[in-house]
Amino acid sequence: MKLKMLYSFLKTDIEEIEKELNLAIDSDTTLLKEASLHLLQAGGKRIRPVFVLLAAKTGEYDIHVIKNVGVALELIHMASLVHDDVIDNAELRRGRTTIKAEWDNQVAMYTGDYMFARALDYMTIIEQPIAHKILSNSIVELCIGEIAQIQDKYRFDQTLRDYLRRIRRKTALLIAVSCQLGAVAGKVSPDIHERLYRFGYYVGMAYQITDDILDFTSTEDKLGKPAGGDLLQGNVTLPVLYALKEPDLADRIKHVHEDMPTNDMAMLITDILQTNAIKKSSELSQRYLKKALHELDGLPPSRAKKSLRDIALFIGKRKY
Amino acid sequence: MKLKMLYSFLKTDIEEIEKELNLAIDSDTTLLKEASLHLLQAGGKRIRPVFVLLAAKTGEYDIHVIKNVGVALELIHMASLVHDDVIDNAELRRGRTTIKAEWDNQVAMYTGDYMFARALDYMTIIEQPIAHKILSNSIVELCIGEIAQIQDKYRFDQTLRDYLRRIRRKTALLIAVSCQLGAVAGKVSPDIHERLYRFGYYVGMAYQITDDILDFTSTEDKLGKPAGGDLLQGNVTLPVLYALKEPDLADRIKHVHEDMPTNDMAMLITDILQTNAIKKSSELSQRYLKKALHELDGLPPSRAKKSLRDIALFIGKRKY
Repeated sequence: MKLKMLYSFLKTDIEEIEKELNLAIDSDTTLLKEASLHLLQAGGKRIRPVFVLLAAKTGEYDIHVIKNVGVALELIHMASLVHDDVIDNAELRRGRTTIKAEWDNQVAMYTGDYMFARALDYMTIIEQPIAHKILSNSIVELCIGEIAQIQDKYRFDQTLRDYLRRIRRKTALLIAVSCQLGAVAGKVSPDIHERLYRFGYYVGMAYQITDDILDFTSTEDKLGKPAGGDLLQGNVTLPVLYALKEPDLADRIKHVHEDMPTNDMAMLITDILQTNAIKKSSELSQRYLKKALHELDGLPPSRAKKSLRDIALFIGKRKY
Repeated sequence: MKLKMLYSFLKTDIEEIEKELNLAIDSDTTLLKEASLHLLQAGGKRIRPVFVLLAAKTGEYDIHVIKNVGVALELIHMASLVHDDVIDNAELRRGRTTIKAEWDNQVAMYTGDYMFARALDYMTIIEQPIAHKILSNSIVELCIGEIAQIQDKYRFDQTLRDYLRRIRRKTALLIAVSCQLGAVAGKVSPDIHERLYRFGYYVGMAYQITDDILDFTSTEDKLGKPAGGDLLQGNVTLPVLYALKEPDLADRIKHVHEDMPTNDMAMLITDILQTNAIKKSSELSQRYLKKALHELDGLPPSRAKKSLRDIALFIGKRKY
């Protein structure tokens, strides 16, 4: 079962967004166009536009309006990836070389700026002031999250709360806003768009926890980047936090550093996998998914509601 | 005569904006706050907020609304400075160490992102959709300009048109938009806010040409950064373009590179100063100022109009 089967009735509209994304990054400036295209063509699940469209289906759905919101959210997401790769010194993203690896940090920074600016431009089709307030608030949070993430690296004394706040800003917020803005653009009542915000938020939390689990349990082939990379780079994810509770492991984890020999790292990962860290992480992810599904209960039945539900369930089971 | 004497009747409101700028960058995240404060406290002319206020004075003036636009424009300007310093590898800005020098490129990138996000947040107080369209369009242009600027470095075969397009994006556009958005927030007619846009555009062009002249004629003490730095870094400014027309100089200019000995550079600058490059650059700057003043003719008399005129005249004579 593939993710996109869950919303196949949106196929034409999603193709429309893909086409628009290509137009969005078009530019006379060759360097900018090449760098943006490089990232765009690496693909991605386009899950944010999908949430935008599905949420809009709960209200007045006009693809000519709503596609702009979908494009905007995907561009913001892509811009944040480009800037993240500068920080992480990442060489690979979605199985391709990153912009910073292919060009340099400077080009990556400005390409991110440009994609972000284009996103804002697309958003101006929505005239409701509340949409712009929601978006700008969440972007501020996103940026705070990005810099907090630098500060939190290799900080092994952090709490579960630190982790949850970090993934909220890093992932859950933009998915929540995708759902909410789709609904706002569809002119639904605040009751509905706030409910969809919460749905997106819970789904986003579950999604990121799953991502953090997969970084331990999956393979380089499936991830498009080396497995175990999070810990190596000092990202203290949920499985790491649980593993830190094992006295034997805690000391070894606290000594992780970027230039650690591959073999030592592989052994540490194997040992972490033998604790209950993954199981406990999955349980928390499942709790978030349950909350997400609960939010959907308040919506009238529709094909969009069914898709949202199926996507949430899919995320709970995904293996890549 | 100091610039701020020309709009002393706005003193209280400008202090209000300064206070708000400090609030704007406040954050629980220490690193972010320190980095932003570092730049904010380096000062600056805050000329963009001044234009916002003066333009708003041509319409309905409510400081509680308009100050947010002023703060937004200054934050966008500051964000672009922070990102520019990453590109330029600049160590000094406004006589202080840059964020990238004090911390690193990563912190500078995210601090810029954060300031920019805060700017958007401030702008949401303006509900007219046209304001957001104007702003997002100009930010896209700004970003294209930033990356084009990298490509244009040490390209000594570029034309006057390349230069003018570059300074339009780099400087004139944001000043034009400051004037226009102040006026839009003041709810004036399109005729007036478009006129103020053109005024700001012409003033901005003159301002940047003057800046590019001062980089040759001023001292490190007055500039807050080493004189002649533009050419050394491969920025082909207007005086350089005119100097390139002198066959004797052209060849020497084309051999400029970043690691050039200080003495060779000093000699080259002295020789450029002996051509008519500065005089011809000043003439073009004056032509833009004349156009700016001409736009003001269409406005009814007011204290704000007088200030706008005085600022334009001041820019034509400024020596720092």
